[in-house]
Amino acid sequence: MSALQNLESLLEDIKNKTENNPVFEGLPGEVPVSSDGVNRRLEFLSQKAKKELPFLTGRKQFSDLSQLEGNIENYIGMSMIPTGVIGPMCVLGSAAKGDFFVPLATTEGSLLASYHRGVKACYLSGGATSVCLIEGVQRSPLFKFDNLGNLGTFLIWILGQMEAFQNITEATSRHARLTDMKSNIEGNHLILTFEYHTGDASGQNMVTICTNAICQYIVQNGPVQPQFWFIEGNYSGDKKATSQSFANVRGKKVTTEITLTKKTINEVLKTTPEAMAEYWRSSTIGTIQSGSIGAQGHYANGLTALFIATGQDVACISEASVGITRMELTAAGGLYASVTLPNLIVGTVGGGTSLPTQKECLELMDCYGEGKARKFAEICGALVLAGEISIAAALSAGQFSAAHQKFGRKK
Amino acid sequence: MSALQNLESLLEDIKNKTENNPVFEGLPGEVPVSSDGVNRRLEFLSQKAKKELPFLTGRKQFSDLSQLEGNIENYIGMSMIPTGVIGPMCVLGSAAKGDFFVPLATTEGSLLASYHRGVKACYLSGGATSVCLIEGVQRSPLFKFDNLGNLGTFLIWILGQMEAFQNITEATSRHARLTDMKSNIEGNHLILTFEYHTGDASGQNMVTICTNAICQYIVQNGPVQPQFWFIEGNYSGDKKATSQSFANVRGKKVTTEITLTKKTINEVLKTTPEAMAEYWRSSTIGTIQSGSIGAQGHYANGLTALFIATGQDVACISEASVGITRMELTAAGGLYASVTLPNLIVGTVGGGTSLPTQKECLELMDCYGEGKARKFAEICGALVLAGEISIAAALSAGQFSAAHQKFGRKK
Amino acid sequence: MSALQNLESLLEDIKNKTENNPVFEGLPGEVPVSSDGVNRRLEFLSQKAKKELPFLTGRKQFSDLSQLEGNIENYIGMSMIPTGVIGPMCVLGSAAKGDFFVPLATTEGSLLASYHRGVKACYLSGGATSVCLIEGVQRSPLFKFDNLGNLGTFLIWILGQMEAFQNITEATSRHARLTDMKSNIEGNHLILTFEYHTGDASGQNMVTICTNAICQYIVQNGPVQPQFWFIEGNYSGDKKATSQSFANVRGKKVTTEITLTKKTINEVLKTTPEAMAEYWRSSTIGTIQSGSIGAQGHYANGLTALFIATGQDVACISEASVGITRMELTAAGGLYASVTLPNLIVGTVGGGTSLPTQKECLELMDCYGEGKARKFAEICGALVLAGEISIAAALSAGQFSAAHQKFGRKK
Amino acid sequence: MSALQNLESLLEDIKNKTENNPVFEGLPGEVPVSSDGVNRRLEFLSQKAKKELPFLTGRKQFSDLSQLEGNIENYIGMSMIPTGVIGPMCVLGSAAKGDFFVPLATTEGSLLASYHRGVKACYLSGGATSVCLIEGVQRSPLFKFDNLGNLGTFLIWILGQMEAFQNITEATSRHARLTDMKSNIEGNHLILTFEYHTGDASGQNMVTICTNAICQYIVQNGPVQPQFWFIEGNYSGDKKATSQSFANVRGKKVTTEITLTKKTINEVLKTTPEAMAEYWRSSTIGTIQSGSIGAQGHYANGLTALFIATGQDVACISEASVGITRMELTAAGGLYASVTLPNLIVGTVGGGTSLPTQKECLELMDCYGEGKARKFAEICGALVLAGEISIAAALSAGQFSAAHQKFGRKK
Repeated sequence: MSALQNLESLLEDIKNKTENNPVFEGLPGEVPVSSDGVNRRLEFLSQKAKKELPFLTGRKQFSDLSQLEGNIENYIGMSMIPTGVIGPMCVLGSAAKGDFFVPLATTEGSLLASYHRGVKACYLSGGATSVCLIEGVQRSPLFKFDNLGNLGTFLIWILGQMEAFQNITEATSRHARLTDMKSNIEGNHLILTFEYHTGDASGQNMVTICTNAICQYIVQNGPVQPQFWFIEGNYSGDKKATSQSFANVRGKKVTTEITLTKKTINEVLKTTPEAMAEYWRSSTIGTIQSGSIGAQGHYANGLTALFIATGQDVACISEASVGITRMELTAAGGLYASVTLPNLIVGTVGGGTSLPTQKECLELMDCYGEGKARKFAEICGALVLAGEISIAAALSAGQFSAAHQKFGRKK
Repeated sequence: MSALQNLESLLEDIKNKTENNPVFEGLPGEVPVSSDGVNRRLEFLSQKAKKELPFLTGRKQFSDLSQLEGNIENYIGMSMIPTGVIGPMCVLGSAAKGDFFVPLATTEGSLLASYHRGVKACYLSGGATSVCLIEGVQRSPLFKFDNLGNLGTFLIWILGQMEAFQNITEATSRHARLTDMKSNIEGNHLILTFEYHTGDASGQNMVTICTNAICQYIVQNGPVQPQFWFIEGNYSGDKKATSQSFANVRGKKVTTEITLTKKTINEVLKTTPEAMAEYWRSSTIGTIQSGSIGAQGHYANGLTALFIATGQDVACISEASVGITRMELTAAGGLYASVTLPNLIVGTVGGGTSLPTQKECLELMDCYGEGKARKFAEICGALVLAGEISIAAALSAGQFSAAHQKFGRKK
Repeated sequence: MSALQNLESLLEDIKNKTENNPVFEGLPGEVPVSSDGVNRRLEFLSQKAKKELPFLTGRKQFSDLSQLEGNIENYIGMSMIPTGVIGPMCVLGSAAKGDFFVPLATTEGSLLASYHRGVKACYLSGGATSVCLIEGVQRSPLFKFDNLGNLGTFLIWILGQMEAFQNITEATSRHARLTDMKSNIEGNHLILTFEYHTGDASGQNMVTICTNAICQYIVQNGPVQPQFWFIEGNYSGDKKATSQSFANVRGKKVTTEITLTKKTINEVLKTTPEAMAEYWRSSTIGTIQSGSIGAQGHYANGLTALFIATGQDVACISEASVGITRMELTAAGGLYASVTLPNLIVGTVGGGTSLPTQKECLELMDCYGEGKARKFAEICGALVLAGEISIAAALSAGQFSAAHQKFGRKK
Repeated sequence: MSALQNLESLLEDIKNKTENNPVFEGLPGEVPVSSDGVNRRLEFLSQKAKKELPFLTGRKQFSDLSQLEGNIENYIGMSMIPTGVIGPMCVLGSAAKGDFFVPLATTEGSLLASYHRGVKACYLSGGATSVCLIEGVQRSPLFKFDNLGNLGTFLIWILGQMEAFQNITEATSRHARLTDMKSNIEGNHLILTFEYHTGDASGQNMVTICTNAICQYIVQNGPVQPQFWFIEGNYSGDKKATSQSFANVRGKKVTTEITLTKKTINEVLKTTPEAMAEYWRSSTIGTIQSGSIGAQGHYANGLTALFIATGQDVACISEASVGITRMELTAAGGLYASVTLPNLIVGTVGGGTSLPTQKECLELMDCYGEGKARKFAEICGALVLAGEISIAAALSAGQFSAAHQKFGRKK
């Protein structure tokens, strides 16, 4: 409900949105990279975002190994991933409001150029509305019984224990809150899905530890012993794309929309609203035929680069890259575009977020620490929307290959 | 066929496989990380693998910006991702044979510890058989016509042009070879899927550029003009999990198997073959119910960490993390386990492979450069198998939460 | 909860289940069909089930066209579908208890022989436990708005109207009860899923009419007008297999289980528990690779034949044939087998249930009219289980082709 | 290639298509059904189609039980399914050309009225272009080996045996022709997919028997014995919806298209092209979110009714109801609509096709016997297209519930 109130509160912002931001003063680019260019960009960021980035730029060296606790075993050193910045990206969100410079770590040429172009088109059209709708992280323990009768006796008892489970959760974690429990019977298998709010952490460890505590209580107190039980029945969608995504949430669900003017599409994206709508329709049918889950272009590209830069659990790209992109002509001759991401497993505390360069990248967007996870999720949505717009434009205009040729070829 | 001959040639190796490697002299671990420990591991690698790793260890600094050409735009600096090594991992492959030390870049605690444990169990059981079965990368342009009659006229012409398309490919790229073309009609839409061998590069840029050249030829010479065409109809599975995976290949298809002895399972994995087989069966049903594609545990974890460390296109985790894991009791009371990965988009040249730390990580496995891509793919398979074994063991033994608690909690 | 109490109440029945029904006095079969054989079977049914079946046997002719109201337009006559009976099928359900003779209408040779064999094996093993777990039929109207802000305003209002919607439902239909409402946002699209209990009718018409009444109220009273709305956004899974099946229900969700003894498997099914378990495991991996939803063998065969015979909406086979079959060895050397059907759209009133032969077929199982739908659903589960057991046995024993050759070949 | 030539040959027909058939002289309808109405329709069919239909109309009684051989066991009598006719349906196909009256057997009110309306709209727009593109029926035996090495030895031998397998096929069946063999490796599992042309039979029995003969040969002559093998690894998609559908064919693949004029949409369908295009776009996104395979409205409704009437294997609705519907505005302000059905398992010989009413229904469309299966498949496509158009029109115009209320309510 509070998320909905956020939605409604955007109404005024949306109404008052300037149709066009007249000027996009973007981060200075160049091909190929030079140290002058690097300096120009750093100065630009220093002025616009008041950020210095000593670790990213190599001016400071990592030395305090104690910071790695909980992040890695068998450590030997640091992989260095080239990192750039795009923006300003204008977001009209419930938590993220304003202009953002977005750090992306990648080795794939043309990625930043493409996303930057999409960001520019969105900026000139007044910025993207981006809303974090719901939140939740799940663990799904599986219990196996001798027969359906015992399963029934067990489940009746379980259904009366929700308060006990919430107390156990509270006692186990400062941040986790157990919000829902669902049951799913398949023969003598019972899967319980525990759903938690995990504050500003991505939360997978937290929900594992809490669910384990709940399961220990269940096994000690339940009226029937299961033959076997496992803390995860591989049902929660952890580290994989699943079709359940669209009826649920995993992490945070964000939807982001924009209406691009015909002028911006012509001038920035070098194509027409009609060609983009046509591309969207045909390619959506293509992706349905490929047996994909959802229908989108390349969410994985931008999200992966942002996840690497900001210390997210990058393996969650498997599920986070599932979504729905939509593009259609408006009555006024522009293009409506939206993206919906039901599985954004992201955090602004814990995981890799406090490591040196990762923390700098989060701070560049004022997304480090408590109270920032929804904001970060809304930024993810706006980034992904920019990427979908840019690739659809390139493909509909026949520029896709040219970009690969210009930016993506190693000598 | 040659892949099959590789398969057959393994028969002798498999027969002669020592049932047990008696001793696993693994990389020295520690919790938490200390600089002494780092030094012990570096010395160990220096002795065993004869590798020094100056960039990874921070002894050398990156300074030559020209190396970034084709890798990134709007560059400002380097994200630093904690990197560790596991092993030795024993592989009995058609291209990868011997013991390997595998570098993994991650911020997720317990990941390396878990994979290392799986690697140890496989080592003590004689190593994993891992085979790259087939290869291919696709682009799927879509052509739209006025009606089915025109589509038919066009397609008849196309079917006679395969040789011309192969010549165009040869003229466009030194490395790409057009191996197949498939057609798919849906109403007035025609999707052509061009499949290429891309040598030791992951190949997405290469196939885009070649397919563009082919499409330019088609549009100039074809008997009917399409209303519209796009170089990618979102059908090739690029950057997304698709159900078509199992009937095809995207990148490289690898299958990897091992038979673990009961003793190893008891002593290293702290569980039983029966419990692991039980977990596999129940969790496979769980994942089917979640609407996943394929059925696996956490391929994404190990692959993502390896992809980041070695300069792969990490966004391809979306498709690369699709696969099938299988575990079952053997007549002798051990456990047969296999993984199958149909979508390994990997390369040992191009992309990020020649960047400083990335190149060092590839060289650590003797996987840098020409002629190494199949080898690298077989190593990916063995790594993933180790991870599946370790997580199934942890879940079946109730240790999963404990590992999260021990290794994965930030202070 | 009441369904769960039904589950628990079965516990005593399950415990007291005779391990073996010693004798299976089955319906007399023959190959090929003769009029003597027909008479023997009719006499058998007359004695065992006290049913005469005048329309099915052709002794009475259909003439009262007024009975067709609501069933068909442009009527010209009756298609005749060959119909046989299998059984007795022993069911240990919460609503279906006892022995049933099951009518099946088909033109596919070997179908009845195969299901009858499975029924016999289940009978000799004490009968199948079959439970209707949950119920619900959905309609999913879609509303499209100018932007996310308006959508939010609208949805906040909607969430306060549940009681009004329930009153509208009550005023619109004697049988329907609105039990749940869910919302799903995708860009400026809002899908509301209304879930109903529909008594003993399959309920699709009922939920359409009620949802239409609710939508009329919404459009007249809501605070914001949608740009467009449709009564079904193609999200409810009507007439199609969807991956959402396993987290929800569509119609009735039934799970059915049995433990077959080794002796029965040897003698009736001509195979071994080990071979069946092996077949199940391998074929489940096969079906995952085919990109199916769920994992089962041939639910469609038995369900279609039963649906045709009993006046169900046969097109719902698309969704009803989705499910999960599981088979595994028991510690005692037998085979545990279960089926789970989340989408049984069935009814015992309305639709075609009161037509002449259809009513006779329902009455043969005492499943015609009010208060019988759950019973009928549990019978569906037991039938499907018998079919899965029989085909797995045939395939594991190499008899599958022989059955096709014996029963299924037209001269 | 021959299918493509059929496609191309349609070009002239498509060009010369009258934009409008000016008059649709449809089968006389009525609500509710009366015997006068039945007689009017029968007379109409007698005049237009020169068909009498003695069994359907009940003037002749079924008595020759020997006709049932191969169709059913445990026979006791005939289920009677209400059957009506819609049309004329105008088809511009490669095998089906002209006007057809289509028999549909159902108990679901509004089904025929809805499809008839769609047929009328298509007729007035010049008829639907419908093409059977490719054909094939598969069996997928699974072989399991001790290890990958043995699997490789086995598969190398298999790949040299295609000619032997074709000879075995020829010796086993008069009608089957083995056209392709594919292999799929997953660990120590090998699935071989044999694809056949099965003439005018739906062919499932035929491919089972031929594949069994091939497997017997393999097991007797192969260089390595598998541990286990099964004639069907549940990979061929038999009786289930699978995502592999769109890259392959199962039975016959048909695509059907039409361009409806704005006038026809207004006058016959009571809506606008814009509303239908809008509905299509929104509902396609709805169905993607539901996790369906493909994207369509209600193929199952029309196909099931046609399959029941014509003696098809109705259980194949599970796979036949998978497909892609597309609708979009044309530059001229009309609506382009297409359907694509990759899994039409249909036959005009064998199965139930020669039973009394079934044969009459096939003959009504001149689709009984040898040389008619492609024609019948193209009629299926045109029927399905009419149904998609009609339901999209009803939903976009808010008439869907009204039709349910008018035609579908039992008293």
